[in-house]
Amino acid sequence: MNLKKTPGLDLKKSFLTLLFKWRGSLYKLCYRELACFLVLFCAISLIYRQALDGDQKSFFEKIVRYCEKYLNMVPLSFILGFYVTTVATRWWQQCLALPWPDRIMLSIAMYIPGCDNESKLLRKTLLQYCNLMAVLVFRTISEAVKFRLNTLEDVVNAGFMTKAEMECFKAVKADCNLFWLPGLWFCHRLREAQVQGRVIDPFGAQLIMRELLEFRSRCGLLWVYDWVTIPLVYTQVVTLSTYSFVFACLIGRQNIDNGNKDIPIDVYFPVWTVLQILFYLGLLKVAENMIHPLGEDDEDFNLSFLLNRNVKVINVGTHAFTSDMCPPMEGD
Amino acid sequence: MNLKKTPGLDLKKSFLTLLFKWRGSLYKLCYRELACFLVLFCAISLIYRQALDGDQKSFFEKIVRYCEKYLNMVPLSFILGFYVTTVATRWWQQCLALPWPDRIMLSIAMYIPGCDNESKLLRKTLLQYCNLMAVLVFRTISEAVKFRLNTLEDVVNAGFMTKAEMECFKAVKADCNLFWLPGLWFCHRLREAQVQGRVIDPFGAQLIMRELLEFRSRCGLLWVYDWVTIPLVYTQVVTLSTYSFVFACLIGRQNIDNGNKDIPIDVYFPVWTVLQILFYLGLLKVAENMIHPLGEDDEDFNLSFLLNRNVKVINVGTHAFTSDMCPPMEGD
Amino acid sequence: MNLKKTPGLDLKKSFLTLLFKWRGSLYKLCYRELACFLVLFCAISLIYRQALDGDQKSFFEKIVRYCEKYLNMVPLSFILGFYVTTVATRWWQQCLALPWPDRIMLSIAMYIPGCDNESKLLRKTLLQYCNLMAVLVFRTISEAVKFRLNTLEDVVNAGFMTKAEMECFKAVKADCNLFWLPGLWFCHRLREAQVQGRVIDPFGAQLIMRELLEFRSRCGLLWVYDWVTIPLVYTQVVTLSTYSFVFACLIGRQNIDNGNKDIPIDVYFPVWTVLQILFYLGLLKVAENMIHPLGEDDEDFNLSFLLNRNVKVINVGTHAFTSDMCPPMEGD
Amino acid sequence: MNLKKTPGLDLKKSFLTLLFKWRGSLYKLCYRELACFLVLFCAISLIYRQALDGDQKSFFEKIVRYCEKYLNMVPLSFILGFYVTTVATRWWQQCLALPWPDRIMLSIAMYIPGCDNESKLLRKTLLQYCNLMAVLVFRTISEAVKFRLNTLEDVVNAGFMTKAEMECFKAVKADCNLFWLPGLWFCHRLREAQVQGRVIDPFGAQLIMRELLEFRSRCGLLWVYDWVTIPLVYTQVVTLSTYSFVFACLIGRQNIDNGNKDIPIDVYFPVWTVLQILFYLGLLKVAENMIHPLGEDDEDFNLSFLLNRNVKVINVGTHAFTSDMCPPMEGD
Amino acid sequence: MNLKKTPGLDLKKSFLTLLFKWRGSLYKLCYRELACFLVLFCAISLIYRQALDGDQKSFFEKIVRYCEKYLNMVPLSFILGFYVTTVATRWWQQCLALPWPDRIMLSIAMYIPGCDNESKLLRKTLLQYCNLMAVLVFRTISEAVKFRLNTLEDVVNAGFMTKAEMECFKAVKADCNLFWLPGLWFCHRLREAQVQGRVIDPFGAQLIMRELLEFRSRCGLLWVYDWVTIPLVYTQVVTLSTYSFVFACLIGRQNIDNGNKDIPIDVYFPVWTVLQILFYLGLLKVAENMIHPLGEDDEDFNLSFLLNRNVKVINVGTHAFTSDMCPPMEGD
Repeated sequence: MNLKKTPGLDLKKSFLTLLFKWRGSLYKLCYRELACFLVLFCAISLIYRQALDGDQKSFFEKIVRYCEKYLNMVPLSFILGFYVTTVATRWWQQCLALPWPDRIMLSIAMYIPGCDNESKLLRKTLLQYCNLMAVLVFRTISEAVKFRLNTLEDVVNAGFMTKAEMECFKAVKADCNLFWLPGLWFCHRLREAQVQGRVIDPFGAQLIMRELLEFRSRCGLLWVYDWVTIPLVYTQVVTLSTYSFVFACLIGRQNIDNGNKDIPIDVYFPVWTVLQILFYLGLLKVAENMIHPLGEDDEDFNLSFLLNRNVKVINVGTHAFTSDMCPPMEGD
Repeated sequence: MNLKKTPGLDLKKSFLTLLFKWRGSLYKLCYRELACFLVLFCAISLIYRQALDGDQKSFFEKIVRYCEKYLNMVPLSFILGFYVTTVATRWWQQCLALPWPDRIMLSIAMYIPGCDNESKLLRKTLLQYCNLMAVLVFRTISEAVKFRLNTLEDVVNAGFMTKAEMECFKAVKADCNLFWLPGLWFCHRLREAQVQGRVIDPFGAQLIMRELLEFRSRCGLLWVYDWVTIPLVYTQVVTLSTYSFVFACLIGRQNIDNGNKDIPIDVYFPVWTVLQILFYLGLLKVAENMIHPLGEDDEDFNLSFLLNRNVKVINVGTHAFTSDMCPPMEGD
Repeated sequence: MNLKKTPGLDLKKSFLTLLFKWRGSLYKLCYRELACFLVLFCAISLIYRQALDGDQKSFFEKIVRYCEKYLNMVPLSFILGFYVTTVATRWWQQCLALPWPDRIMLSIAMYIPGCDNESKLLRKTLLQYCNLMAVLVFRTISEAVKFRLNTLEDVVNAGFMTKAEMECFKAVKADCNLFWLPGLWFCHRLREAQVQGRVIDPFGAQLIMRELLEFRSRCGLLWVYDWVTIPLVYTQVVTLSTYSFVFACLIGRQNIDNGNKDIPIDVYFPVWTVLQILFYLGLLKVAENMIHPLGEDDEDFNLSFLLNRNVKVINVGTHAFTSDMCPPMEGD
Repeated sequence: MNLKKTPGLDLKKSFLTLLFKWRGSLYKLCYRELACFLVLFCAISLIYRQALDGDQKSFFEKIVRYCEKYLNMVPLSFILGFYVTTVATRWWQQCLALPWPDRIMLSIAMYIPGCDNESKLLRKTLLQYCNLMAVLVFRTISEAVKFRLNTLEDVVNAGFMTKAEMECFKAVKADCNLFWLPGLWFCHRLREAQVQGRVIDPFGAQLIMRELLEFRSRCGLLWVYDWVTIPLVYTQVVTLSTYSFVFACLIGRQNIDNGNKDIPIDVYFPVWTVLQILFYLGLLKVAENMIHPLGEDDEDFNLSFLLNRNVKVINVGTHAFTSDMCPPMEGD
Repeated sequence: MNLKKTPGLDLKKSFLTLLFKWRGSLYKLCYRELACFLVLFCAISLIYRQALDGDQKSFFEKIVRYCEKYLNMVPLSFILGFYVTTVATRWWQQCLALPWPDRIMLSIAMYIPGCDNESKLLRKTLLQYCNLMAVLVFRTISEAVKFRLNTLEDVVNAGFMTKAEMECFKAVKADCNLFWLPGLWFCHRLREAQVQGRVIDPFGAQLIMRELLEFRSRCGLLWVYDWVTIPLVYTQVVTLSTYSFVFACLIGRQNIDNGNKDIPIDVYFPVWTVLQILFYLGLLKVAENMIHPLGEDDEDFNLSFLLNRNVKVINVGTHAFTSDMCPPMEGD
């Protein structure tokens, strides 16, 4: 039994070691833009040195100086900082909003006892309805899950839904997202169980019901995060500023004859300019990475892992009442 | 059945693709101001070049230098960053405060069973009272809903209220906003149902009641957001600074003969100045867009969509007890 | 029946229109300081030009340059940004902490039925105790309410308290703020009602009790906000910096003969300096305005409006059980 | 009966009036450092002018220029802003975590009735256990309370604990902080009361129990704030930067012959430098003041006031059932 | 009995005294990097002075000027401020998410009475299951606990688990983290106790169950913090910028002949540069220290202390019902 299933980073060491990771790294995210930049930068440099005559050169030098001035005109770092903070907050709140069936599972284990098959079936069905609700809402908001579970038939084949459930689901005609339908079934079955005396007391039914509502709210919250995104104009302002900065660097950082550049090293490889672009572009990529945490990027939440884990948890929770599962109490 | 009803952005791709959206975009929001700026900029440039004589020119050049100095005097980006963050927080909290009847619907489905017409009617009435409460509070705070549902008769015609309910509502004489009146009716009907034995146990009635209080609190919270706005003076400081910056650009960025501008390109189209104005004005528009999220702008919350969706949800929730709606439980 | 009682701003239009408001505006808050500044500025300018001889002038010019340097020494905008954000957060949290009796009113309407006079009286008394608690805590923390309701007799005359209640209140000898005393009476009456069978079940009594505790907590929270203010030293740092900046402007922005000012326009009216002062002073006024939101400024929370509204709400809630108040249920 | 016991600031007036407060003020906190600075500044100035010869002077002038450069090298205001915000957030959260027995008092008043001595004793004992828990946790985390209540005997003498309770407390042998022990006694007495029928229904016992858990959590939270402080390295970075800035000012702001200082006023009293140091040092003092809010500084929370207030509240709450305490209900 | 077990800082004194701490200090964290920097700095300085000839010198001087320019190009402090704030928020939220068994302990003490051995055993077993859950989740996410309790046998030896429990735990075959399994046992035992009448009423069982769910949620939250870390790219941007700044200092701060450095003091020990590096590197170390708060650094949460403390608390809570443990109630 392995203890750790999490694909998280090893954060115990110095940050310096993190600089040499590739997966989900700055380099992986920026190398395309950076390559373009370097190619264009060299091309412009070559043209300036080889193809232009004196007048053209001096005109070009004016443009360089003009672009160079712009580099200090927009306080890019500031607005990137605010934007990244806003995006990161949303990202983490979405992570906290992920629905977990564990609380419902424990409540059911407490209040719906019984080792007979019917009790087991009841417990399993209730928990599967919850997981199905999560599956259905994930299909709506996550490209990765949508790709894996494109039609309801795929959901059935993946084992999250039975055929009969699919029929019932399809039978409801309503022109809105019906991911919460299994929640209704849950209520129906829970009430039935209470009436039949399978729930040991009404306190239990109320507690289970409350946990269901909490589960439902989290699904709905995720859906709201998908419905209402950060206003386009904010993202555009930040993106436009960053890319126009990169573009201004392309020309404004050229090494010109009468400029204030002192050494030829810049011609061959503009070290600091590249670092500066990595800095600004990197921050933009941080935001790009976090604004849609349910996709298929390296850093996105692993929803498939979550759904499969839930199935296993439900299985353990359902069969938790065979006689040998609970250890005896022992005195000191 | 389409899965996705959300008009959200497609955030999976690079931010670069978002630069070419028009709806709710930076360009759509700023093009008027920008056009004015460019026309005036050119006009001033022409007057300077054509109409002024030497002394006037040198006087004008002094003004240009004077304005240019101002451009660095006020740290605009900083205060815009703080202001936008404050506004964005309010905006998102309002989004989270939107009332959804789903939790009440599930509670009712759990605790008020029955396939007979009276049970259905009871369930439907209770849920419609909630939605009516939302409608009434939205009419108060949202221009879009107010426009669509101007009088109570419009609300009746739109099907959110019955005639009898309108009479009852109008019969109450109180000089204050009465959007919570359907909540009182809800309590009355719920108590009646409990006394008649339609609610399976008092736990259920308490749970439904609590969800109603939660729903009521959210409506009230939205109303408070409308009642207490960000202090006018904060908005004025930010607006005044931004527009005085734009105005200073109009003169301070003119290309004058003895200035430190190097190339004539600025005369025809002041590229960087336009980008800088887009940057600052864009941030102001972000705030303008988000400070009143219940209006009719592109980015505003779609309350009509929400109300119509609620009606459909209520319908499904009400009729959820016909025998074939809940799938059978199946073992493995 | 008017829908909207809120004195809020019309935020649907462009921010530009907000620049021309007077009530609660930047101009209203700053015009005194600004007038002083301009008068002193002109006086100094006149003295420099008319009264000083050559040596004195050159000594004055040194002082001007010395002051001018200071203008860039302290990063005022930054610290003002942080301070305003802190104050604004407190301000909004106080707004959210305002106690509303609506939730208690609904709970009582659900669980304490009856159209007879005694039931009505019980409902009304309970709710009035809540409102009285709010009145008493507001008297402690708000100058506006304290002014209107200076003595307990004023509270009685305003109808928030009966004479008998005043006697009871005065009978308690304890050297601490007793605003929560009506809460004790509430508990007493509620228990009495439960014992007499006026509350339909103990679930109801518990729910009402919980809502009372919530109401009490909000009153207490407002009191804590009044008890523990932002540390004086923080406010002093910000105020001192802003005013020393304004003072430095008074001298440092004078147009001197050998200075780097280019045009005489500054002599008559220092446009940009005024805008800059409006900017910094405006931010300080934002904080001054929001740090004590329960006073009598234009932007302060309208507590009298709130208390009067509560009385009306309580009235409606109390009499909500005459037979014609609740509309009949109607099928489709 | 005085309404207001709070030692809070009068925040209704302009911030300008706050500049002339001494208690808890910027001047009180910084005058020592400032006096040192001025004495050293003058001493260095005198040595430079009187004791140094030409070569030494020119060497000293080099050092001055070197130090002056540093003043712009570290963006002090920025990091101070972030640090102060972090500290202020913690400070306020600790204030919100202070435990108040009022909610428990109201719950007990509702559910444990009776005017006989035993009921009174029960109510009083329960509430005193809560206050005792607060006393014990305050002794652990607050120097001021620890000083006043050094030994358990002091606690007994101050009336927060009886002798018998002290014996019981001391009888428990466990090598950990036992401030929560009175909570256990509370549970014991409450269960006893429920079994004896002194609590009117189990709903009441549950509600009282929940409020106790909430009270316990707040005590624990305060203890956690004491256990886990802001990492030392953060505080050190900020402190080191501020004091090295002040030190650099000491030399870098000297008025040297060949420097760019224009007027001799700086020699006698460096006005702006002092203001700047007040600014940065003041912000550091804001943090120093708020990082340990339970001490004995002017701005620290007045825990003794709180404990004494609680005793009075408990007294009122205990004796709230003599027949004349609750006013009669009166119709309109 | 010692009152204070917390290894916290003494924050009552001036921050100046904190500068001389070594444990967890800036110096301890940065001295390695700083030593490297100084050695390299001197080496480069020596090579420049001794080994280079005129042309090489002038080439080197160009490189110095080139690097010096970079030092102002990236607004490091800004982005470090945002990053540190983000990390510090996570760090504190993890601290608040630490699970404490105290609330469950009090609930059990209230609702599961009895001095007989079976009651004691039941109470102890329930609480040990909670602590075991904490142990198991800590093993997953904390290196320190994992090191101490590497195998389940170690957990048994440390007394957190019995042999029988280990067998039961190992008997469950599921390919996911099963730290919540003791929670299932808890539910089983609690239901058993309720059925046997050991819990005095179902209210109690519900309250205990709710506290268990809360405990479980906190364990899960800690696990989520371990699962989803701050995106690598954000950390890389910040780290890369800081170290490239240090590297640029290495060359750009060299004292060259034709540079604008004025005094030779810089050659022997670059005071201000070292302070500046301490400043930026210190902030990075703050983040490095706080990003993984469950490790073995000086500032990390002391989980072993926590687990041992819990064992003691559970012991006291279990045996809290011997007759002499609760003091008698005494009148005034």
